[in-house]
Amino acid sequence: MTNAENRYYLAIDVGGMSVKFGLYSVPSGSGIPQLTAKSTIPTRTENSGCRILPDIADAIQRQASEAGISLSDIAGIGIGVPGPVILNEDGRSVVNGCVNLNWPDVVDVIGYLEEKTGIGNICLLNDANAAALGEYRFGLLGSGGEDDEISFSSGAVMITIGTGIGGGIITGGNIVTGAFGAAGEVGHMPCNPPGEFLHRIHGKDPSMPLRADLEYYASAAGLIRMTAAALAALDQDSSLRTLPADHELTAKDIIDAAKAGDALASDAVSFFFDTLGQGLASITSVTDPDLFIIGGGVAAAGDYLLEGLKKAYREYVFRPSRETAFRLAVLGNDAGLIGAIAPLV
Amino acid sequence: MTNAENRYYLAIDVGGMSVKFGLYSVPSGSGIPQLTAKSTIPTRTENSGCRILPDIADAIQRQASEAGISLSDIAGIGIGVPGPVILNEDGRSVVNGCVNLNWPDVVDVIGYLEEKTGIGNICLLNDANAAALGEYRFGLLGSGGEDDEISFSSGAVMITIGTGIGGGIITGGNIVTGAFGAAGEVGHMPCNPPGEFLHRIHGKDPSMPLRADLEYYASAAGLIRMTAAALAALDQDSSLRTLPADHELTAKDIIDAAKAGDALASDAVSFFFDTLGQGLASITSVTDPDLFIIGGGVAAAGDYLLEGLKKAYREYVFRPSRETAFRLAVLGNDAGLIGAIAPLV
Repeated sequence: MTNAENRYYLAIDVGGMSVKFGLYSVPSGSGIPQLTAKSTIPTRTENSGCRILPDIADAIQRQASEAGISLSDIAGIGIGVPGPVILNEDGRSVVNGCVNLNWPDVVDVIGYLEEKTGIGNICLLNDANAAALGEYRFGLLGSGGEDDEISFSSGAVMITIGTGIGGGIITGGNIVTGAFGAAGEVGHMPCNPPGEFLHRIHGKDPSMPLRADLEYYASAAGLIRMTAAALAALDQDSSLRTLPADHELTAKDIIDAAKAGDALASDAVSFFFDTLGQGLASITSVTDPDLFIIGGGVAAAGDYLLEGLKKAYREYVFRPSRETAFRLAVLGNDAGLIGAIAPLV
Repeated sequence: MTNAENRYYLAIDVGGMSVKFGLYSVPSGSGIPQLTAKSTIPTRTENSGCRILPDIADAIQRQASEAGISLSDIAGIGIGVPGPVILNEDGRSVVNGCVNLNWPDVVDVIGYLEEKTGIGNICLLNDANAAALGEYRFGLLGSGGEDDEISFSSGAVMITIGTGIGGGIITGGNIVTGAFGAAGEVGHMPCNPPGEFLHRIHGKDPSMPLRADLEYYASAAGLIRMTAAALAALDQDSSLRTLPADHELTAKDIIDAAKAGDALASDAVSFFFDTLGQGLASITSVTDPDLFIIGGGVAAAGDYLLEGLKKAYREYVFRPSRETAFRLAVLGNDAGLIGAIAPLV
């Protein structure tokens, strides 16, 4: 954390479709960056994504001019990318190829931007890890909040539940990146779900696997998959059968039906909670976080999600860790942007 | 790491039966501590273990006198305890009760020893975590070894396979202790083993659970438990049936029989590898270590163990992390002693 007054940091969130830029000022005495300017450029992924970094370097110049500052006024740049970040032989963070950006090989993002901008203080993170760090450092702390139940001393795990399951692991206040940039890839944890719901479906439809990875069963897509499979395989009434034929089933439909007492939807949601709760208990046996931060589309279910998940978690977790805190993510899509500069401020 | 010449550090490993002391000198320019004196006292656990810390304080004085140094020559003390270490409200490490020492409540080991010895630089670790750090910092690096395949940049996980399964999680070179001192308690990871071996036993003996924690199935005791259950439940020949009636089955018996081609023993050992491999793959989805260090009694099986385990691990782990390194622990019972001072040197 810097002691100088009002320093500027530039945050960059590189996505497969667009690159977001946020210029933040960090007031002296406070670690919570304030957004002062924002812009977006398209991500040009053609030709192995060779234009992406030059475009970013140009946009950095433009962003600074428009804000009326020079590059030397920028105390650091944080950049998040949608691919694995590893350390190279020199101990520098590099992108180890990135499917979403069409980068086939290792790309030294920091080296390129240092040379083009003359700014020496650049850090590079995987975007999911940047989002986790943003929520941890600036979301819960920054949302106006005393949150006395949470100790911020040890660590946190952010779980993003959407089409897949993403994760960010924080220990000692820092993101764990992993030897292959795959720390926090908890969606790919081997998983054999508890309970008899899965076996009931499997009994009628043997193509439903009894074992897969966590996100197969317990992402938003997993909840939809399992509910659709139950509707197809089981001879059981459900309000979900009355939805229009052309309606595409959503996680919200299923959760709403479960809340309204629909038995099949309740079974599917219980299965979702149980499977995810078991997965989080497995994470706790590794890093024993103070806090799980739950984000992604499913987090719209709010307290219903938190309470269901916490209850299931407590059934599976090693007893000393039963009181792990659970909170919803609060920053939404901006978590990855502000999180990219978290290691710098 | 200190730059002064030849500094002394005192390592203490508190066990349920005895307390071991090791005085180490750390030569300037090298991080590998050299043992210069060693002693042991009994652990007096009666009366809620109230004598343990005074006994240790006395022994520290004695150890210093016998070595011909004064307490002020000791640059730091590292102490490992067989219980959960958490941070208290002041951010100081304390023992959160300890069954093995009969400590019912929080004990401020550092505060007590600071006051009694005047030594300010004291660190406290859980003993399994100290052993993990010892192996990581001084075992593989210190055993005369170049080990070019391993990057020490990210992290490691030590797995101790004995009566239970213990673990120590290292990220960024430091032990992860966890919110409740339960990081690395991977023996308590929820587990539903893969393969049909378990289901064959369960089919004949429904008291065999299909779901438990990892150490139930995949510790040394777990291997023995599952093999004994298979011998009792299954109508299958095995050389293990020819052992004397009063012989207590060991993990070594089972592994030796498997190596010699015994089908039942081979199934039991494959089940052990598979279950443990799946567990390690789950750990990797969280911290993605560079390295697994395997210790404990079962590690006597050497390369046979490493190869079997690595093969199973690769079947379950998320693809980018398939090349995680596996090594055997090398320090044996001394890992916890030297590891206790690892955070100081």
